[in-house]
Amino acid sequence: MQVDQPDPATLCHARQVLDRIGDKWSIAVIHQLGTGTKRFTELRRGITGISQRMLTATLRVLERDGLVSRTVYPVVPPRVDYALTPLGETLLDNVCQLMGWAVEHGAEIDKAQAEYDGRTAL
Amino acid sequence: MQVDQPDPATLCHARQVLDRIGDKWSIAVIHQLGTGTKRFTELRRGITGISQRMLTATLRVLERDGLVSRTVYPVVPPRVDYALTPLGETLLDNVCQLMGWAVEHGAEIDKAQAEYDGRTAL
Repeated sequence: MQVDQPDPATLCHARQVLDRIGDKWSIAVIHQLGTGTKRFTELRRGITGISQRMLTATLRVLERDGLVSRTVYPVVPPRVDYALTPLGETLLDNVCQLMGWAVEHGAEIDKAQAEYDGRTAL
Repeated sequence: MQVDQPDPATLCHARQVLDRIGDKWSIAVIHQLGTGTKRFTELRRGITGISQRMLTATLRVLERDGLVSRTVYPVVPPRVDYALTPLGETLLDNVCQLMGWAVEHGAEIDKAQAEYDGRTAL
């Protein structure tokens, strides 16, 4: 397969973007929001192992990147909804494909790791 | 868009896999190897900003995951070739799409960040 090679500065910038988005928690949040708008507690329940602090930090990075919107409703108790922005939606297909790839090939990767560790332990 | 939701343990495992692959240097190496077999020095030249140590570490992780093969030729001086394995090839399309997405939307993300920083600095 032939791969286009943009100029180094563009690639470098793209890598910085992907480094944030490629984070496992970012991928998990985008994937969760793919099913629709969620509150903080719903997101947290849906993502096994994420701490409150990590979810807050991840949402902030995604909001800053323009991928997730945060809507505060002036009710008591306050209600805050998180959703993908139109830009975030454009990323969803890629994230779901990557997630699907990892689910599909997880066992192969485990096997490769075991073989590698067996070889290098000799 | 409706997103399939595998069970939490599968998702958790998939996230661990993606956390390694989502690393910016891993994506860069897979992307570079998408154009064909490369030697270490060729890879290093092709990836702006990567150090020798980081490239070595990234290649080792990808080799351990079964995504990259390392072939040593018994010549003087030694020659080592790196290439995508068939498993790595299955990931290439996803990586190229992600890279393409980041190149296409990099300016939008920069703009969103500037706006966010403007709002939160008030």
